[in-house]
Amino acid sequence: MKRIRGGVAAPRGFVAAGVTCGIKAAAKDLAILASEKPCVVAGVFTTNDVKAAPVQVTRARILRHGTAQAVVINSGNANCCTGKRGLGDAGRMAELCAKQLGVSHQEVLVASTGPIGKFLPMAKVEKGIAAAATELRKRGAADAAEAILTTDTVTKQIAITETVAGTEIRIGAMAKGAGMIEPNMATMLAFITTDAVITADALRASLKHAVDGSFNRITVDGDRSTNDMVIVLANGLAGNKEVWRGDDLERFQKALGFVCCELAKMIVRDGEGATKFVHVTVKGAPSARQAEVAARAVANSSLVKTALHGASPNWGRIMAALGYSGAKINPNRVDIYLGGIKVAARGQPADCDPARSGVAKALKRKEIQVLVDLNSGEFERTVWTCDFSAEYVAINV
Amino acid sequence: MKRIRGGVAAPRGFVAAGVTCGIKAAAKDLAILASEKPCVVAGVFTTNDVKAAPVQVTRARILRHGTAQAVVINSGNANCCTGKRGLGDAGRMAELCAKQLGVSHQEVLVASTGPIGKFLPMAKVEKGIAAAATELRKRGAADAAEAILTTDTVTKQIAITETVAGTEIRIGAMAKGAGMIEPNMATMLAFITTDAVITADALRASLKHAVDGSFNRITVDGDRSTNDMVIVLANGLAGNKEVWRGDDLERFQKALGFVCCELAKMIVRDGEGATKFVHVTVKGAPSARQAEVAARAVANSSLVKTALHGASPNWGRIMAALGYSGAKINPNRVDIYLGGIKVAARGQPADCDPARSGVAKALKRKEIQVLVDLNSGEFERTVWTCDFSAEYVAINV
Repeated sequence: MKRIRGGVAAPRGFVAAGVTCGIKAAAKDLAILASEKPCVVAGVFTTNDVKAAPVQVTRARILRHGTAQAVVINSGNANCCTGKRGLGDAGRMAELCAKQLGVSHQEVLVASTGPIGKFLPMAKVEKGIAAAATELRKRGAADAAEAILTTDTVTKQIAITETVAGTEIRIGAMAKGAGMIEPNMATMLAFITTDAVITADALRASLKHAVDGSFNRITVDGDRSTNDMVIVLANGLAGNKEVWRGDDLERFQKALGFVCCELAKMIVRDGEGATKFVHVTVKGAPSARQAEVAARAVANSSLVKTALHGASPNWGRIMAALGYSGAKINPNRVDIYLGGIKVAARGQPADCDPARSGVAKALKRKEIQVLVDLNSGEFERTVWTCDFSAEYVAINV
Repeated sequence: MKRIRGGVAAPRGFVAAGVTCGIKAAAKDLAILASEKPCVVAGVFTTNDVKAAPVQVTRARILRHGTAQAVVINSGNANCCTGKRGLGDAGRMAELCAKQLGVSHQEVLVASTGPIGKFLPMAKVEKGIAAAATELRKRGAADAAEAILTTDTVTKQIAITETVAGTEIRIGAMAKGAGMIEPNMATMLAFITTDAVITADALRASLKHAVDGSFNRITVDGDRSTNDMVIVLANGLAGNKEVWRGDDLERFQKALGFVCCELAKMIVRDGEGATKFVHVTVKGAPSARQAEVAARAVANSSLVKTALHGASPNWGRIMAALGYSGAKINPNRVDIYLGGIKVAARGQPADCDPARSGVAKALKRKEIQVLVDLNSGEFERTVWTCDFSAEYVAINV
């Protein structure tokens, strides 16, 4: 596996563009991503009961149609809680894009992100689609990655090559999402392209596997925003022997997993107001589910996050979060390590001098390891989060 | 029902004191509350799996012993995650207090609040108990109310009189708790005294009823801190006909419910960094449980709370919270009112001009009404919360 340049347009046959059409005050707000031939496609969508119009439209298209050739995305408006008119607008976005590209409107997927409860300014969207369609090019990935951002401070792109079935295939991707993620439901969007030849089933399975190990480590199904989606398009231009199982599939999955993990970490690092990247690992759990639930409670605790922001070794807040997590905890078995240093042993203060042990120093780093050992089983799970600063509030007011 | 002065020491036969013994840097940190005769007692405790030592000790005493004559409380240290030594320290606090008061140590309950994971400085605690015991008096309620605070900015006290079974009875109370409450688990403590003559069963039932309608509207069982407790002591000195059922019980319950509601609201108003008091009501739900779950999701959303802080009529964040709440929501039926003004109708933007409708003005008030009508049933539930300011982060760093 090797990193390359070019983002979503790095794989053969893909082009991209991002333009400013006035949905936002003064920033790029409309992107198109297109392939020169139809792609096998797979998607993962928000489980929020309130689903934005583009989520409904795109999901239905992937289920019924199964292939796609382009995605049109706007930021600055979520097209959510907009009823029939919103569904019509999402369909119309696809239609306008399809017309520009000369493909069937069924072949175009739609995504939106931004404030909820406002109708799309369709005249602007129409102009934006026309403009973006004329700008589609290999070097357009950075513009596209910029056009899908909301409160993000940096674009999130990656591209890699890998050898699968003896042939070099490429994967490119872009993402957005910069809320505190869970539990605050800033929309997370990710678009992944590949030129690999792969069956629809293998692509679906690979995406599910990759999302579980990446985006789902920073956000929980139940708490997703109304607009979340992760889409992967495979146009087959690499010409490899079709990937469908065995070593080839494993290799592809690993590469896709890497891409998704890197994007997920970029999202956390760009969390609203975030100054630190935090790995929360719970091990010694009686099941993977218990490890997950416990890690998530710790990673989501505002009190833990503010303590980490202030570099305070306040492990009591971690214990309290474990206690209300819903996981089965025996407090008298819990060990807690901050930055690799044991601060709590069997649920009590460890024999560790905060001043001398290096804990304070470890907590001042940009990247912090929180390790909880429940000493009650063999299962382990890591989730990624960021600290919680006053800046977060300022951004969301 | 009439408000009177005197807090927890207002009912006949109760005295209180609060002193500074050095657990905190420089503030009152130890309180004693005592009755001249043994009291019928009832308690409600945290459901966190990690229970502080004083919670374990007090709960066991109430279950096994059934009566109590005093409570000793310290702030500045939670005596939690302190293992056997912590349990010993909690027992020793009761013993020291009992010795000073000349009562059986079984008659003394214990509570603690403050940082988790530190052993109690018992030499200081011992001095504090001795000092507080000599200062016990009718006018000591304010000192006691001050000594149990942590990040609270004001004391929380109330006392009332009510006529029950033809006799004037009194109820007094004090509380602490100033985190964002749920989901941030700042310890909530409340101590209630009454001179009513009441059976143990009636007192237990009344307390449960009162807590459900008050403290449980601001904090959920699953998310309670390691140290939460609500205790009521009834010494019977009012000499009324024993309360055990019927009108008398109803009257007592109502009075106790009022006291708990007032304390709960005081806690929310003093929420860390809070500048606004928010009523979140969900009506039209298919069950009380669904109304509760939906209201709580809205009240707990950091995005909703920051929007309210900024007086932003961003009802999309409310819709998103409803969508992930776990309650069964039909987005196309949801109406949302902010400050009494309909901002969303049937899941879409209402015909309401934000500038002219008065929404902006309503959101700038100190007290805000958020009303969600699910239009899917007959059930309604209100929870109380506060807004979310940058100050919260500053307090918890």
